[in-house]
Amino acid sequence: MPLSRRAFLAAVSAVTLAAPTRSSARVRRAPAIDAARLRRRLERLSTFGRPPEGTFDSGVSRVAYSDADIGARAWLMDEMRGAGLRPVIDPAGSIFARWGPDNGRPPILFGSHIDSVPGGGNFDGDLGSLAALEVIQACQSAGVTPRRPLEMVIWAHEESTAFGRGTAASRIVAGDLKAGDLDQVWNGLRRAEGIRRIGGDPTRIDRAVRQVGAWHSYLELHIEQGGTLDRARVPIGIVEGIVAIHRYDVEVVGFANHAGTTPMDERQDALQAASRLVLAVRELVTARQGRQVGTVGRLDVEPNSPNVVPGRVRLSVEFRDLSEATLAAMGEELRARAAALARETRTAITATLATTNPPALADAGVQAAVGRAADAAGLEVRRLPSGAGHDAQMIARLCPMGMIFVPSIGGISHSPKERTTWDDCARGAAVLLGAVLDIDARE
Amino acid sequence: MPLSRRAFLAAVSAVTLAAPTRSSARVRRAPAIDAARLRRRLERLSTFGRPPEGTFDSGVSRVAYSDADIGARAWLMDEMRGAGLRPVIDPAGSIFARWGPDNGRPPILFGSHIDSVPGGGNFDGDLGSLAALEVIQACQSAGVTPRRPLEMVIWAHEESTAFGRGTAASRIVAGDLKAGDLDQVWNGLRRAEGIRRIGGDPTRIDRAVRQVGAWHSYLELHIEQGGTLDRARVPIGIVEGIVAIHRYDVEVVGFANHAGTTPMDERQDALQAASRLVLAVRELVTARQGRQVGTVGRLDVEPNSPNVVPGRVRLSVEFRDLSEATLAAMGEELRARAAALARETRTAITATLATTNPPALADAGVQAAVGRAADAAGLEVRRLPSGAGHDAQMIARLCPMGMIFVPSIGGISHSPKERTTWDDCARGAAVLLGAVLDIDARE
Repeated sequence: MPLSRRAFLAAVSAVTLAAPTRSSARVRRAPAIDAARLRRRLERLSTFGRPPEGTFDSGVSRVAYSDADIGARAWLMDEMRGAGLRPVIDPAGSIFARWGPDNGRPPILFGSHIDSVPGGGNFDGDLGSLAALEVIQACQSAGVTPRRPLEMVIWAHEESTAFGRGTAASRIVAGDLKAGDLDQVWNGLRRAEGIRRIGGDPTRIDRAVRQVGAWHSYLELHIEQGGTLDRARVPIGIVEGIVAIHRYDVEVVGFANHAGTTPMDERQDALQAASRLVLAVRELVTARQGRQVGTVGRLDVEPNSPNVVPGRVRLSVEFRDLSEATLAAMGEELRARAAALARETRTAITATLATTNPPALADAGVQAAVGRAADAAGLEVRRLPSGAGHDAQMIARLCPMGMIFVPSIGGISHSPKERTTWDDCARGAAVLLGAVLDIDARE
Repeated sequence: MPLSRRAFLAAVSAVTLAAPTRSSARVRRAPAIDAARLRRRLERLSTFGRPPEGTFDSGVSRVAYSDADIGARAWLMDEMRGAGLRPVIDPAGSIFARWGPDNGRPPILFGSHIDSVPGGGNFDGDLGSLAALEVIQACQSAGVTPRRPLEMVIWAHEESTAFGRGTAASRIVAGDLKAGDLDQVWNGLRRAEGIRRIGGDPTRIDRAVRQVGAWHSYLELHIEQGGTLDRARVPIGIVEGIVAIHRYDVEVVGFANHAGTTPMDERQDALQAASRLVLAVRELVTARQGRQVGTVGRLDVEPNSPNVVPGRVRLSVEFRDLSEATLAAMGEELRARAAALARETRTAITATLATTNPPALADAGVQAAVGRAADAAGLEVRRLPSGAGHDAQMIARLCPMGMIFVPSIGGISHSPKERTTWDDCARGAAVLLGAVLDIDARE
């Protein structure tokens, strides 16, 4: 009889909170995550943006640049100062703090974000952010003297709620800033003003850009947001990379007509055609081997009236995979299916590749370090791609990158129901600590 | 080689403008429609609600209670007065005018409406309204003395644009007025105030209600709005009845999740399920013999974001047919298909019968009179149901009802591209005239 998940977790929980000690940095005693403090901080952080009269279970709405975001950042910087750190806000709004030797060597960077989607959960970003502080405090408590500086980061504006595009501050750090980006207006807020509100400096935004090699490597602990680890009862995921995204804007043009007077055989019903395309997207994605996904998430009908045969449908098709070749092949098949459907349904269908995000592959060395850290903690691992975007994909342009995933119960995220067990939070933080020290020791 | 449509029309045009003369009313000479005047009036009416700097081809926006509607009504009442009529506005806002003997016998009523949808055409309603005036003027010119009063009507507020429900004034006449109906607000306008604007009297609305037998019979000439007559090259349609409508509100509940992190086999994608239902609606409608139609015209996705697996879809399913038994059977099949799809897609699907409009069958005697009038004019006829709603379906509750259809080119309606040839307009008016005189003569 296999060990139950609960029994399995209990069995490993004793060992997971201490980081592996094979680091060659000078260590007085084995550095260990303070799981209780990590939990307390996650609970405290959850109060910034909590619904009125809500509880931890009510989730959080801490959209970038909101008062809740500003309050949470101030609290977190106080916590950092309490740990003897000196948080610095870069011109794009992200919070950085270095610890360790000031020897001019590129630091090992690790962290995440604390902004959320509206109605989001209390683990997405929060865990990796607070675990980063734990890593430094664990090293402090254990008297670790790393070989190179350790640097934690709280990325600003990671979720795409504000201004419709996420990983915004790390994108600037990676040099991807276009003229006019800071003049965007969202809900009456100019983006430059938002950056100013959180302590950034839009007039010096160019100085937020960092060069390749600015950091030795980057690590991010994050909840999986999918259900792979939870289903497999594996506590640690080693991320192979962050998938590329190809998004198509599809338009189906039929002919709007009276729903009462137009016989069935004379209709050019854009929604009938679009519905077949929605099913075709799923078919073509699932017909091939692999972990690629494809989604029609948005679909708008015109004129969208019960008594009018739909004349036009606009819909989005999004493909995600680590392999750009697979994405290209699926795009080709989408166009072929659309052309065939247009002929069969007497509609016109256009599919335009609207946005592409390249994949960001995790560095093999960083993946290996994560694997060794998990192994030292006696934790089973699974390698998997990240289907979601993360700041790590931006920083991968500047230095070797790796990510650690912990299970999301039921695969639920971006929801008040988003959950990761406290034990899994502590295990993830311990593996982050171990991996940072492993990387520091090896070079 | 069959006669071309153009040649066919030219061949019959000489005979179609004169009404049949088998009426036993006293007649000095054969009454005939003045086709040129009818066209002039249609063109003049098209200027009320025409887009700025537009032409006849630009269509019309003459929504009920608008300034354009009020202007058109004033112009039309002047035309009626010019023909010696005394237009009277009933408390619900419709314009009536009687002509002929004041002998206390129930009149023969005929007419249509002149309000339009936004961006509508210049024939829907307008033709039947102006043809009604032509019928009386033709009788006047020919010295006809009918046996019973002839009464023309311009129904107010026929289109469902204003306040979301059409055939509003005829509905009141038929006694279907609920408490609060006149307090509805649409675009800032209270319905009672709208009725007052067009000359009605909401304080005396009860007096607009008419009793069964108030009229001897009701006739309405209208464009088909579908393509049956145009395709068949038949100039006159004899309407068998106005179809019943059953509309279902359908809700598909899946589970919204991250489009990147949720593997394909774990999704409960509400849009995949809804798309299959959209196709099932068409299948179940077309699988059975008959002229029934079924439409999914409205479909709304939640959260409707490209990067989120849809969690909920709401859609409308509308079935139309003359037979309520057919509608009930299609509703049963819809529910059965929905239940099967819900199981297969791990979603929950509910289909609620939201609104039902009963069918309104055309009177056999009135249909026969239309047939004789067309026959006397040498015009081919086709019997067909009306898939669209008309004021005639309300008045069918009070007296025998019949409708005459003329071809809509390409079946296009509710569009600036709505067209009926001038010859077909005149033919339709001639058949209306002939049918009115036929009915008057027979009883």
